Amino acid sequence: MIFITRRERFNAAHRLFRADFTDEQNLEVFGKCSNPNWHGHNYELFVTIKGEIDPETGFLLNLKQLSMIIKDLIIEKIDHKNINLEVDFMAGKFASTEVLAVNIWNQLLHGIRALGAELHAVKLYESENNYIEYFGK
Amino acid sequence: MIFITRRERFNAAHRLFRADFTDEQNLEVFGKCSNPNWHGHNYELFVTIKGEIDPETGFLLNLKQLSMIIKDLIIEKIDHKNINLEVDFMAGKFASTEVLAVNIWNQLLHGIRALGAELHAVKLYESENNYIEYFGK
Amino acid sequence: MIFITRRERFNAAHRLFRADFTDEQNLEVFGKCSNPNWHGHNYELFVTIKGEIDPETGFLLNLKQLSMIIKDLIIEKIDHKNINLEVDFMAGKFASTEVLAVNIWNQLLHGIRALGAELHAVKLYESENNYIEYFGK
Amino acid sequence: MIFITRRERFNAAHRLFRADFTDEQNLEVFGKCSNPNWHGHNYELFVTIKGEIDPETGFLLNLKQLSMIIKDLIIEKIDHKNINLEVDFMAGKFASTEVLAVNIWNQLLHGIRALGAELHAVKLYESENNYIEYFGK
Amino acid sequence: MIFITRRERFNAAHRLFRADFTDEQNLEVFGKCSNPNWHGHNYELFVTIKGEIDPETGFLLNLKQLSMIIKDLIIEKIDHKNINLEVDFMAGKFASTEVLAVNIWNQLLHGIRALGAELHAVKLYESENNYIEYFGK
Amino acid sequence: MIFITRRERFNAAHRLFRADFTDEQNLEVFGKCSNPNWHGHNYELFVTIKGEIDPETGFLLNLKQLSMIIKDLIIEKIDHKNINLEVDFMAGKFASTEVLAVNIWNQLLHGIRALGAELHAVKLYESENNYIEYFGK
Repeated sequence: MIFITRRERFNAAHRLFRADFTDEQNLEVFGKCSNPNWHGHNYELFVTIKGEIDPETGFLLNLKQLSMIIKDLIIEKIDHKNINLEVDFMAGKFASTEVLAVNIWNQLLHGIRALGAELHAVKLYESENNYIEYFGK
Repeated sequence: MIFITRRERFNAAHRLFRADFTDEQNLEVFGKCSNPNWHGHNYELFVTIKGEIDPETGFLLNLKQLSMIIKDLIIEKIDHKNINLEVDFMAGKFASTEVLAVNIWNQLLHGIRALGAELHAVKLYESENNYIEYFGK
Repeated sequence: MIFITRRERFNAAHRLFRADFTDEQNLEVFGKCSNPNWHGHNYELFVTIKGEIDPETGFLLNLKQLSMIIKDLIIEKIDHKNINLEVDFMAGKFASTEVLAVNIWNQLLHGIRALGAELHAVKLYESENNYIEYFGK
Repeated sequence: MIFITRRERFNAAHRLFRADFTDEQNLEVFGKCSNPNWHGHNYELFVTIKGEIDPETGFLLNLKQLSMIIKDLIIEKIDHKNINLEVDFMAGKFASTEVLAVNIWNQLLHGIRALGAELHAVKLYESENNYIEYFGK
Repeated sequence: MIFITRRERFNAAHRLFRADFTDEQNLEVFGKCSNPNWHGHNYELFVTIKGEIDPETGFLLNLKQLSMIIKDLIIEKIDHKNINLEVDFMAGKFASTEVLAVNIWNQLLHGIRALGAELHAVKLYESENNYIEYFGK
Repeated sequence: MIFITRRERFNAAHRLFRADFTDEQNLEVFGKCSNPNWHGHNYELFVTIKGEIDPETGFLLNLKQLSMIIKDLIIEKIDHKNINLEVDFMAGKFASTEVLAVNIWNQLLHGIRALGAELHAVKLYESENNYIEYFGK
């Protein structure tokens, strides 16, 4: 069993808030991340998959395939977008890094399995000081 | 003459566009950065000042003072904000990194002089692959 | 189950030695790290906690709370200090990165539990080439 | 149980290909990595070992010993070399990062055990965007 | 006058040597970099251009144009290639980082001028510990 | 004219203070950096030299020579040392990063000239957020 990790990056706007809260309540719970005019980040996404080395190629998976599936299923939908308003797989959900990491996992799971590998981890940096990891359970 | 550089960071939303353009025209000129729903970045700001070492302290300037003036004049106004809508020193201007760097320079110039040092450079990263430098002329 | 990691930094002096050794013996076992006049490091501390996402907020834990508890229990006590002489939770112990990581774990365990999350890992960099991880067992 | 990781670096040339393929077939399967004239990388190798802290020293293992065994068994054999042509422990094998990570593991396993610790992980970066991890099973 | 820097990356094989030297002489002068079987690097290239901000767009230059010209004139020719054997603008030259930086400058100069900006600097990292800068004179 | 930069690293303890101040006065002027029990840093030193490319080798200077002269004149004297107490070229001087950078310049100037190159800049990081540059005048 070998593990391969691919990094992809995206820039997006978001806001942390509850629609049933006033701006004051949102500010109290979510701090400056609740700004109604949005703010944004350079997100770094690390996707780790696992499987056996193919004896015909020496690869677990062609990295180009892994990069392409992440780009198709995630980056194309979220890069230079507003996470709260424009990303289909985040519709109606909190735009926190925690919830985003779980939904990136769900978004990737079957596509990676179809390539013959297993998704192992999604690691998502919102800043150099904070990151979320999700392992699917 | 010695040079000291302080890094500060901020996260903000922005959009590149002209109000006199249609969305299609903006898309053509500014690409995905023109998204009307905004996107955002983790900006890294490096402020370089120059001057003589104070023989009483061995400092050019107390770093805490330098950090505080950058925070007061820049970070407090822009962090977790929308650059197009909420930042006073960017009102009515393009929210490009180039224009932002020049306006950060103008914003800092007199405050740093009042501390007894000279502003030398503003370096602003929008992503790990791109940065702008401005030297005031 | 989701994992969130927060990075905090501190600068400290330390020395690796045994009081029952001569300086020569200490030099032989601990090398230049045994210098009786101390040396120091910029330490980077990564604290990972785990738990469920709160359906009311989309958070595992408010990052500010996590940052504050690390600052209160660790950073305030060790930043710009001498680890051998001044850090209460290291009194009478080797000032190695291994022992420091274990004691940071012990120092954080109950406070993080009181916030409703579980401490998962302490990762401590002494330099860009070396780090220690401790998982509590 | 404590985990310590040491980073070492090496620069090497390699080529991904099968001798039983034509250049065209190799290009199709391995892309530009199949260039018959070679290309190369700055590899970053992270070796993680685990064990108990020695109560006599506060160490899991003297870092110099760990660094030296990695240099003797890996770096000396691969740094500034051609992985396909000159590295004994890669003879007759695919020069992919996956296969290289597994063989670095096999190369280190007994030497680290002889030092009284257990090899836990080999993590190998080929670029800032890709890395392989192997845990020995 | 504003300065914008774009980072691009490439991986390549090379060898430092003189054809009129024996392998022993090459080893003496160029060290392990003279290995006749090649070695390689992940190069990081920073291209800095300067000019005035266009009042119609807020840009010095569209970053996509800058990235594209670097890719066309440099990256396409050198990425995953052997610098000594396959790169037209390095034919018959030493494959040192110094010489490579100068030739990247010469390769880019007119194309960037044609875009309405001025090339200011080429900065080329061969490893995290070494880089070359060239300013055209 | 080409510029080459070499990075070297050292870990050291220091204290910012004036002997003619009380501990309270030192705390007021130098903050927590005045701790009488010392603190320390992982310093990163970037030394830039300039000169012409040697047409016989393609080098400005053999990097090994540059690394060795920095190690001999600086690193050997300061690594794992107490800057205030043990570093000959800092005796009787403030242990600030500003003063240290100037003295590293003075320490290197003649040795680099003897190698046939010219010292251009000393850049010294005390932390990821602060660095000093000195150009010799």
